[in-house]
Amino acid sequence: MVMVDLIKKKKQGEALTKEEIYFFVEGYTKGNIPDYQASALLMAIYFQKMNQEETAYLTEAMMNSGKAIDLSAIEGIKVDKHSTGGVGDKTTIALGAMVAACGVPVAKMSGRGLGHTGGTIDKLEAFPGFSVELSIEDFINNVNDIKIAVVGQSHDLAPADKTLYALRDVTATVDNLSLIASSIMSKKLAAGADAIVLDVKTGNGAFMKKTEDSFNLAKEMVEIGTRMKRDTIAVITDMEQPLGFAVGNSLEVKEAIDTLKGNGPADFTELCLTLGSYMLLLAKAVKGVEEGREMLQKVIKNGKALETLKTFIERQGGDGTYVHKPELLPKAKHVYYLRANEEGYIHDIHAETVGLSALLLGAGRETKESIIDLAVGIVFKYKVGDEVKVGDSLAEVHYNQEDRLKDAIEKLKSAYSIKKNRPVARPLIHGIVTSEVEKKKI
Amino acid sequence: MVMVDLIKKKKQGEALTKEEIYFFVEGYTKGNIPDYQASALLMAIYFQKMNQEETAYLTEAMMNSGKAIDLSAIEGIKVDKHSTGGVGDKTTIALGAMVAACGVPVAKMSGRGLGHTGGTIDKLEAFPGFSVELSIEDFINNVNDIKIAVVGQSHDLAPADKTLYALRDVTATVDNLSLIASSIMSKKLAAGADAIVLDVKTGNGAFMKKTEDSFNLAKEMVEIGTRMKRDTIAVITDMEQPLGFAVGNSLEVKEAIDTLKGNGPADFTELCLTLGSYMLLLAKAVKGVEEGREMLQKVIKNGKALETLKTFIERQGGDGTYVHKPELLPKAKHVYYLRANEEGYIHDIHAETVGLSALLLGAGRETKESIIDLAVGIVFKYKVGDEVKVGDSLAEVHYNQEDRLKDAIEKLKSAYSIKKNRPVARPLIHGIVTSEVEKKKI
Repeated sequence: MVMVDLIKKKKQGEALTKEEIYFFVEGYTKGNIPDYQASALLMAIYFQKMNQEETAYLTEAMMNSGKAIDLSAIEGIKVDKHSTGGVGDKTTIALGAMVAACGVPVAKMSGRGLGHTGGTIDKLEAFPGFSVELSIEDFINNVNDIKIAVVGQSHDLAPADKTLYALRDVTATVDNLSLIASSIMSKKLAAGADAIVLDVKTGNGAFMKKTEDSFNLAKEMVEIGTRMKRDTIAVITDMEQPLGFAVGNSLEVKEAIDTLKGNGPADFTELCLTLGSYMLLLAKAVKGVEEGREMLQKVIKNGKALETLKTFIERQGGDGTYVHKPELLPKAKHVYYLRANEEGYIHDIHAETVGLSALLLGAGRETKESIIDLAVGIVFKYKVGDEVKVGDSLAEVHYNQEDRLKDAIEKLKSAYSIKKNRPVARPLIHGIVTSEVEKKKI
Repeated sequence: MVMVDLIKKKKQGEALTKEEIYFFVEGYTKGNIPDYQASALLMAIYFQKMNQEETAYLTEAMMNSGKAIDLSAIEGIKVDKHSTGGVGDKTTIALGAMVAACGVPVAKMSGRGLGHTGGTIDKLEAFPGFSVELSIEDFINNVNDIKIAVVGQSHDLAPADKTLYALRDVTATVDNLSLIASSIMSKKLAAGADAIVLDVKTGNGAFMKKTEDSFNLAKEMVEIGTRMKRDTIAVITDMEQPLGFAVGNSLEVKEAIDTLKGNGPADFTELCLTLGSYMLLLAKAVKGVEEGREMLQKVIKNGKALETLKTFIERQGGDGTYVHKPELLPKAKHVYYLRANEEGYIHDIHAETVGLSALLLGAGRETKESIIDLAVGIVFKYKVGDEVKVGDSLAEVHYNQEDRLKDAIEKLKSAYSIKKNRPVARPLIHGIVTSEVEKKKI
């Protein structure tokens, strides 16, 4: 087998065999196949696409490129939740505590943020002392003891994906459904979950801007999960405006805490209940999503979810008192109030632009090396569809550096569209994608 | 300007600007742009194509990547002839002498053979002592003195093309019209010709198998030449069966000599007259192709063409007596006669297969490092359309190594198709492609 023949084959629109895909992934990971042949193949894949079988083999080969994690020592069905990334997405923090409080194990590998979207690990580090540097043994023990642990992604987890992603990034070959789906799923599968709930974001703040593309990505991932014998459900959720009110690490943690107290934003609470009920369903803790929703509402009401967060933070070295006193979390020195200069209904708070504004404030990373400011960010006072008057405070801009403020505000202003008429509401949940087998269960 | 944006642009089907194309070619030649980005762009070009303007800029940028050769010290209009390569193509040897004998300068850069097609330099080296290692000064002086010189391709001639071609070869991005046309034309233009006659082969033994593709390649190259202000004419010629009767270095030289004596094969003689008459036309030595053809026939008849070959060989260190005594040329030890085992008309002598058979005998190079056997090869006794009886000798196989014979014969046999009915004749000249301006002159 020679690599140039694989490139030719894909270029001509033919499907690659399992052996050919393994040959490529293994050869590239070992350094036997040079970057220039890999990138030529990736570009050919972009144009000619991969069928579901090829995509599944690619996922499997990447999953097997490193050491898959064995979570069998954790009791119960391990359900992983994965979000394709959005602005103001603090779901893992609230949802993890909620599901764990229901007695279902949450063994989560998380990443850091890059660009306009934030990362769970960064947010959790707003709790002083909190660390994701756990051994696999401690990780497993924590889940068995308190039902929840979050660990940073191991370097040996699907290394082929890491190498290929870096190459795709510099060769304009990121945006292909099969490549995206296999990248996400290879890591999820290698991370050892028994079942997977995917939160596929859609809208300008998401990786997939068009609803149709988001559904296609969801289908691709559910197909892979099903072929790999993991119960997989995808929820397509809105990312046209930021999720909840808060954007920025500490601010989002505070919002997650509020949500666990039952005082969270309506959209964010609803998202947690939806995703959580599917997680409980796949974990076989409930018989249907309605029962799951009730169970989740119960652990919010009785304070168990909040207590689980506290225990979790403490178990990983963080200061748990912050959970009850979120005012202790890192706080910015200044607050600027962005006010409305026209009256009408908010038609748009462009999520991607908001993410970029937060990035300008220092809340995110422009490059992998950037140091982030945990305290800064934006807290919205209104959401899309709300009516505002001239002078109303649209958002609080929490900032530390005077010189970063101006650009951030300009950017934030440009995220808004206010019009006289009431806008057509966009749903929070656009739909559910699952395999035929799963559909019957719901 | 960053390379990933250029890749994205082309991927989306947009045209690259002159600046962007120069950025790529210069950056890649200097090593500032890595192979993996270049190959991703090449694959995107394969799928999205380049328009004529982009192709012309690519050609220009590659031409300018090294030192273009200045032939202005040569008197007269320098017309270069380029063949896209075929089996049994000894045209340069006969044609060069014919055109030079008409007083038109022939300043030719040639290459060596690779794969199933031969190279002019290899063939000329059948004359003991002959060398293409000339300084540019000697090259120019020779052309001024005797109207003809052949030199090996300089390493500094369009180096970007050389680097890019090597990358295309291993990334399955060779077969794109713009890339092929710009590769050929960048070298021709850098080699300093005032006008160019292109012999674009078509058929199974050619790079372009389909007639339509050959015409498209011809159009693309004529367009580039015209944009670069070089009179350019392309002749699309047949390469379904080998050209002439002889395939193999010494054997082809002998056939070229026969042709200069007026005893050459009909097809090869006709090809030389056609290409030669266009060369004389572009050199403004004649007013029309008919006049050119007569002039060429005259220098064959009066022996001037043959004498020119002798002088040319001697001027470059070769033994000129071989021109009059071609029996002295390297000769194989054995001859095997391939005989017909059925009667009927020859429908096919598959050119590519013949080239591969000659390669097996040792006449060609499998890799750049292969050493070739100048003596071996094949001499056909019949051409497509001829009638044969059982036992007739179809071809002489000249060989030196017993162990190479069997495979070569098997291959050669598989090149034949003999049927009861008379085949439909395929033209030798499929057509002419030229710019609008040129058409008026013909």
